[in-house]
Amino acid sequence: MSFATLWESLLPIGRDGLSGGYRRFSWTPEDAACRAWFTRSAAERDLRVLTDSNGNLWAWWDPPGLAPGPGVPGGSKAVVTGSHLDSVPDGGAFDGPLGVVSAFAAVDLLRERGCLPVRPLGIAAFSEEEGARFGVACLGSRLLAGAIDPDAARALADAAGVTLAEAMAAAGHDPDGIGPDDGLLAAIGAYVELHVEQGRALADLGAAVAIGEQIWPHGRWRLDFTGRPDHAGTATLADRRDPMLPFAAAVLAARQAAAAHGARATVGKVTAEPGAVNAVSARVSAWLDARGPDERTLQAVVGEVLAAAREAAAGHGVELAAAPESVTPAVIFDPGLRERLASSLEAQGIRAPLLPTGAGHDAGVLAARVPTAMLFVRNPTGVSHSPAEHAEPADCAAGVRALATVLEDLACS
Amino acid sequence: MSFATLWESLLPIGRDGLSGGYRRFSWTPEDAACRAWFTRSAAERDLRVLTDSNGNLWAWWDPPGLAPGPGVPGGSKAVVTGSHLDSVPDGGAFDGPLGVVSAFAAVDLLRERGCLPVRPLGIAAFSEEEGARFGVACLGSRLLAGAIDPDAARALADAAGVTLAEAMAAAGHDPDGIGPDDGLLAAIGAYVELHVEQGRALADLGAAVAIGEQIWPHGRWRLDFTGRPDHAGTATLADRRDPMLPFAAAVLAARQAAAAHGARATVGKVTAEPGAVNAVSARVSAWLDARGPDERTLQAVVGEVLAAAREAAAGHGVELAAAPESVTPAVIFDPGLRERLASSLEAQGIRAPLLPTGAGHDAGVLAARVPTAMLFVRNPTGVSHSPAEHAEPADCAAGVRALATVLEDLACS
Repeated sequence: MSFATLWESLLPIGRDGLSGGYRRFSWTPEDAACRAWFTRSAAERDLRVLTDSNGNLWAWWDPPGLAPGPGVPGGSKAVVTGSHLDSVPDGGAFDGPLGVVSAFAAVDLLRERGCLPVRPLGIAAFSEEEGARFGVACLGSRLLAGAIDPDAARALADAAGVTLAEAMAAAGHDPDGIGPDDGLLAAIGAYVELHVEQGRALADLGAAVAIGEQIWPHGRWRLDFTGRPDHAGTATLADRRDPMLPFAAAVLAARQAAAAHGARATVGKVTAEPGAVNAVSARVSAWLDARGPDERTLQAVVGEVLAAAREAAAGHGVELAAAPESVTPAVIFDPGLRERLASSLEAQGIRAPLLPTGAGHDAGVLAARVPTAMLFVRNPTGVSHSPAEHAEPADCAAGVRALATVLEDLACS
Repeated sequence: MSFATLWESLLPIGRDGLSGGYRRFSWTPEDAACRAWFTRSAAERDLRVLTDSNGNLWAWWDPPGLAPGPGVPGGSKAVVTGSHLDSVPDGGAFDGPLGVVSAFAAVDLLRERGCLPVRPLGIAAFSEEEGARFGVACLGSRLLAGAIDPDAARALADAAGVTLAEAMAAAGHDPDGIGPDDGLLAAIGAYVELHVEQGRALADLGAAVAIGEQIWPHGRWRLDFTGRPDHAGTATLADRRDPMLPFAAAVLAARQAAAAHGARATVGKVTAEPGAVNAVSARVSAWLDARGPDERTLQAVVGEVLAAAREAAAGHGVELAAAPESVTPAVIFDPGLRERLASSLEAQGIRAPLLPTGAGHDAGVLAARVPTAMLFVRNPTGVSHSPAEHAEPADCAAGVRALATVLEDLACS
């Protein structure tokens, strides 16, 4: 089966007719359709499908003559590739799915080449990578790796107040069993995630694929500006305590600080209460997303934004409460595995520069427990988390070839 | 019945337990409870209650010996006072209700004084003055005065998509009959609205009541900033088209322009799409509320804000669509009626300075059709559209005495 056929069979699931973007959120009917697609694609390849206790999907190609199951007695650990199938609201088609589709396509290519694995080869699709429904990114891999408390995870609620436990149960998955699976992790010798690039470094470098070097440290901070609600027509400017004004100053300060430090800072979510056209706001809540090439830079950027926000708030008689919601340190991918990828690609004449990324990934979470590597596929515009996200078919094919080359080296020899 | 008893009987209706503010929106159960309170208060005073075709409430004290109904043959036109009972989201207790409660209390006071009207004396409570549910301020008085097309009004929808027509019908009021009522307006010789002050000019002047001079010209403008959604971690700053940035610039420009011109400009409502923490926004929509002492000033303020917004948008590759949603010219209250109020208050030793206001009122709408005046009652903090909105009991009593004095002069002699 060609990459294109496989890709097109996934494409209609969860696509919004209006925006053309995807709304694939965990434990929804769209999510169930994605899971059915995964199971079907695995079955078509005679792969053995399992859903782990955290709701992550696994398709196993067991080595001939060995007992089924990840983890083979004698230390022959499994090689796993994959990504995720969920999306941000109105996200693109490639972020996540490209890694899963390429994994199945790479298995097809290995079989065409007559390769047989000598250790278990797995394809994973991790649940709720985007955190779009329950607010915690990489939730499925975090649970697997023990990077989030299961009770805290079960209590996470979506915008409608439905908890993760309720959503899982409603989808027929027992939420009582979620939590770390050290046995599964111990059986994995390497995890390689292929992902569409979310910037346009590869476009500028003229290469179709890259090897991941590190994930920038990043985090999100919540800023609550509390002023005093008032009448927009009658309250004099001097009497106001308008939280919208220091919020606006913080937005501009974030851009300035990011530019000054070669970092990224974004305010993409804001709510104003009471939200009336003719009222000075009582409160404005905003979320700052910040990322930088190293932790010192990240802290400098966030420090400058918060200082500017505090100063503007004080100038307008507004209270500011600022707190990190999540902060993730830098992830440097396993140097040995990275070198091995580089060598196997070079041996096949595939040029693959090293690239850092500002985006979080399940690979970043798993890197704490398992030797982990990433491959990126060129995105001509760099646009991501948007219906305009794209990768050319030729580059997708190059990605599959690179992944197959790496898997052949890791799993078949 | 004392003012306090009457006031306290209205106070619990539609009060939010959490904020302490009011959520009295038209054609809701809270609105029905307010209407029942009005009907009960009128019945307790042997006033004749009518709901007009637009859903505004009227309580009539008919002159003894004359046939009931507003409009008396021979040109003895009615005198009307009143205000509204609906609120902004989490609004205060006084904005609107003070005028209605004071009207009933003034009737009590006139009766204590042994005054009998020689022409019909009406108390009105206009529907949807705040525009909190259907987005058009002074909707009930606008319909009555023919200042909005009935078909357009019927099609207005609330945030849940329920139209005014549907909401009225669900509340048992026929929406087919809405529209101008020239007969009713022709029968009214004077409308006097008492309202809590929404600034603190009276506090600074040391007076309990004021006479309205004019309503500042004011309007609301919608600004849609359309950029390009993107990944907050990976899109380089240079590649972004982030609509949040020119929006923030517009917020700060509004404050600056208002300060420069002695006017008011406020952004109290904003929405960002898709509204994800880790995504550059596709679109930010904001509403600018602007008011000024005259139309030239208002246009100057709005012109400066839009120019700054356009420049910032262009600098970030963002499209800006800006359009007025409603613009209301200045209302100068009837000079003859204003003089008459001043004389009758002066004769009773009541000091009442002249005050302009930045707030819209039903009186401003009716002024186009009927001689209209306003009385303001001191607000010690000036805070309005907020649970902190307040007027001291002594000042409320002074307001009732002033209103009774004016009504005695206009209706009883």
